[in-house]
This record gives sequence, structure tokens and C-alpha cells, in this order.
Amino acid sequence: MANLRAPEKADIPDTLASGLWDTAHALADAARDAILPHFRALGLDAENKDATGFDPVTVADRAAELAMREVLARRRPQDGILGEEFGTSAGDSGLTWVLDPIDGTRSFLSGAPTWGVLIALSDATGPRLGIVDQPYTGERFSGGLGRASYTGPLGERPLGTRSTAMLNEAILFTTFPEIGTPEDRVAFERVKTRTRLTRYGTDCYAYALLAAGHIDLVIEAGLYPYDVGGPIAVIEAAGGIVTNWEGGPAHGGGRVLAAANAGLHAQALALLRR
Amino acid sequence: MANLRAPEKADIPDTLASGLWDTAHALADAARDAILPHFRALGLDAENKDATGFDPVTVADRAAELAMREVLARRRPQDGILGEEFGTSAGDSGLTWVLDPIDGTRSFLSGAPTWGVLIALSDATGPRLGIVDQPYTGERFSGGLGRASYTGPLGERPLGTRSTAMLNEAILFTTFPEIGTPEDRVAFERVKTRTRLTRYGTDCYAYALLAAGHIDLVIEAGLYPYDVGGPIAVIEAAGGIVTNWEGGPAHGGGRVLAAANAGLHAQALALLRR
Repeated sequence: MANLRAPEKADIPDTLASGLWDTAHALADAARDAILPHFRALGLDAENKDATGFDPVTVADRAAELAMREVLARRRPQDGILGEEFGTSAGDSGLTWVLDPIDGTRSFLSGAPTWGVLIALSDATGPRLGIVDQPYTGERFSGGLGRASYTGPLGERPLGTRSTAMLNEAILFTTFPEIGTPEDRVAFERVKTRTRLTRYGTDCYAYALLAAGHIDLVIEAGLYPYDVGGPIAVIEAAGGIVTNWEGGPAHGGGRVLAAANAGLHAQALALLRR
Repeated sequence: MANLRAPEKADIPDTLASGLWDTAHALADAARDAILPHFRALGLDAENKDATGFDPVTVADRAAELAMREVLARRRPQDGILGEEFGTSAGDSGLTWVLDPIDGTRSFLSGAPTWGVLIALSDATGPRLGIVDQPYTGERFSGGLGRASYTGPLGERPLGTRSTAMLNEAILFTTFPEIGTPEDRVAFERVKTRTRLTRYGTDCYAYALLAAGHIDLVIEAGLYPYDVGGPIAVIEAAGGIVTNWEGGPAHGGGRVLAAANAGLHAQALALLRR
């Protein structure tokens, strides 16, 4: 699917892919260890700054990105890094790790387990592998370079998107009913009114549910590249499609439409564009 | 707090309380075993009926309530039962088990871990003990008869609500932005616009987050008695307050306001009533 709208993806040999996956999982493990002590810490309140002058969510966010950067300095110093907290670090391999240590800080702050650690490895064509990790539930959704799998409370399972054919059978998720600009909201509502069910409040977890075949559509606006890199790789590896609202590449962020399959994507895109 | 608006609660001796708690946990355990095989079952889709003619959510719902009724037939045949799926069974002890095997069927259907098993034991004055259980994450929030505790991925912890003083510092949760009637929505929006943060989509899980001290307010409408019995007991045991939008008892269902403390409750209630 990606080939219809993006440059041909460069071949990554299996031996390199295996090492890149090891690094990706090491990053997710490091982020889990750094974040979990701060989640649901007693008295957690983003208004209460600690001795460093930062709120606990920011402390966890920064600790996790630093932990991931240490892993990369050790394992893949030749790669670039784009991180939510500490910005861009140059590399010379043509590969860039795109890191969002805590996507869904408002969920995190509220104790809800729908935030996640987002990791992607991108080349010039976009994300090639990605992870959506939920440290508290112990769920990891991974996809790219020939793999697409879930590990968590239900064991290990392959990921695969649904074959839902019609919009009126589809389950749609987004984070806020406001979506983005007033025009974004009107476009979203055109899709929403045609779907079977709309749910809110899940942040990056919605993309994981889509990749795992539980829901059909995610529509959001106002995203940054590090909000979408991981989800794009996981969903594409699971058989789904992610574009912006014009049908072009979504890895730059902005307005994003993720769909379980090409037919649903076309139906939703037509309504968003109208 | 409850004494300000409800009849004096009858004394339940410690020896009886201990046995009632054992039964409550046995009910939650039985529901977990009955439901988990159906959650995120591959190809799960409420439109696809199985051989029994029911969708998987309904199958899990009924299996869990039957499993809980079997536990009660064995351990507490003298108590009444009010269950979401199989209605009322009379008892002669003055105590009634109020059971909602899956609260949040739309979350369940979508694979999101914010549905729960709700269990309450009520007497004439209302819920005396309750459980909000999340089988997939392994979280159990229990409260009443002198206990209030969480068990789950973070171990065992006491439950306790927050001391947030002002509405503009409060985190508010509800399930749908539509809330209930158009008038209900207008009243909800009066509170929402004064709070620091509003989140959607969590079903009964929001009440558990409130009891555990992570959020401050839950406001909903259109609830049934089995939707609120468990949450009321857990939140009251954790130090919070649950009433209807008129400030009266909430265990009959309808429009519900749950707050972390008396001050926040009064501020939200004044806006809901206006």
C-alpha cells in the first residue's frame, strides 16, 4: 500500500533487521524501567513541582528519553535521533530513531493506562519499524521489517487489522471530541455520524487496538512526527493504512487517518476531504 | 458523609464482614475466569452472532453472571440478587448482591481495558461493600466495611481520594461527551468549563481512578443501579462522595456525581443544579 503514495523503500537485510529489532526492544525496556516508578505515584499532580522544578510527568518523560538515548549511544551511535523532549541528534546511517517517551501525558496524569511509549525507526521514506508500548499493562505492539506482533497479558499473538467493509460497521476512536480546528471537527463529524460506534480518550493506545484488529479507524489532528512514527509502522505491518487527511504520507504529523483496510480508508478519506 | 443524607447504616459485625468480603472476592474471581476467554477473542465483533445466537460480549456477560450466581447459591443463598442480565432473585437476609458482569460493553467490544466487573452488597441504606474489577489488567479496587484497597500490577495499596480543593485544579472524567439529555449536557458543560482537564471514554474505570486518588470528579447520566452500586461503595470507603445531581442518594442510578471530597462535591453540585 505504501508504494502507491511513497518512494520505494530501501531493502534492509535480515541480519540488520534482527539487530534493529533488538535495539528497538531494548529502548522500550529502558523506557518502561524509567517511567513506571512515576506512574500513579502517590500524590502525583502535574501542578506540584518536585525539587528539580518539574512535574512528575515531565520527570518521567525526560528520564525515559535519556535512558533510550543511552541505549542508542551504546548500540547504534551511527543513527540520528528525533526525540520529543531533547530534539534532534544527527547521524550518518540514513536511519533515525523517532522517540516519544510518554504519548498521552494527560492519560498518564490521570492514572489511565492508555498512554504509551512510541518508538520508530525511519529512513527517508518514513517509518520502517515501530513499537507502541504500555508499561503498566505490560503490552507491547511491534511492527515492521516483516514482523507484526503483540505481547502482553494474553501471551504472544500476531497483529492483523480487521476486514470490516463498510463505514456503518466501523468502530472509530479519537482522543478529544474537539479534534483540532473547528473545520477539522466538522470533517471528523462527517465520518463519525456514518460509523457504528465512536469512542474517545485513548491516545496512542487506539492505534495499537487498530493494529490488533479490535477497532477500524483512528482520526486525529495536530500531531507531531513523534506521535505517529511508531503507530504508522505497527499499523502498516499489521495490514492497515495510515495517511494524512489528503491521502498523502502521515509521518510528518498533522492530521492523521488510520484505517484497518483500503476500502474503509477510501470511504473515510472521501468524507474528510469533502 | 453518608449519614448527612441517608438513614443510619446498620452495624455489620467483623466476623460477618470478613465472610462477606471472601464471597465478594470469590464472585470477582469467578467473573474473571468466565469473561477473559472472550476478551479480544480473534474476530470478536458484536455483529457476528455465534451458534447460540448471541454476540461474544453478551455470551461473556451472561457466563459471568451465571458464574457469580453459582457462587452465591453455594455461599450466600439467603441473600437477594439484582443482576444486569438475569434480573432479581429474592432473599431473606436483608442483603442484596448487585452485579454488573461487564460494565462498559462498548469498551469491551473495542478491546480497551476500561470495562469492569461491578459487584456491590447493599442493604436498605444502600451499598455497603463494592468491587470494581478489571480482569485483563488484573486490577481490583475494593471498598466498604472498613476496607479500601487496590491490588494489581503495582502490588497492594490502600485507596484514598484526593484533597484537591478547587474546581479549576480538578480532573473530570465521563464516558460520552453527550452525557444524557440535552439539558444534562448543558449542566455537565457548566462544570467541565471550570475544571482543569476533562477526559472521556473510561466507563466504570473512572470511578476506580477517583477512589485511588488519580482524578477528582466523575459525572454521568442514564445509569442503572448495577452501574453504580460497586463504585459508590469503593469511593465512599476511599473518602469520596457519590450523590445524584440533586445531592441525594445515587444508588438508584440515573444522574450521578462522584467527587474526591466534600468541597469539590459542593462546587460541582452547585453548577449541576443551577
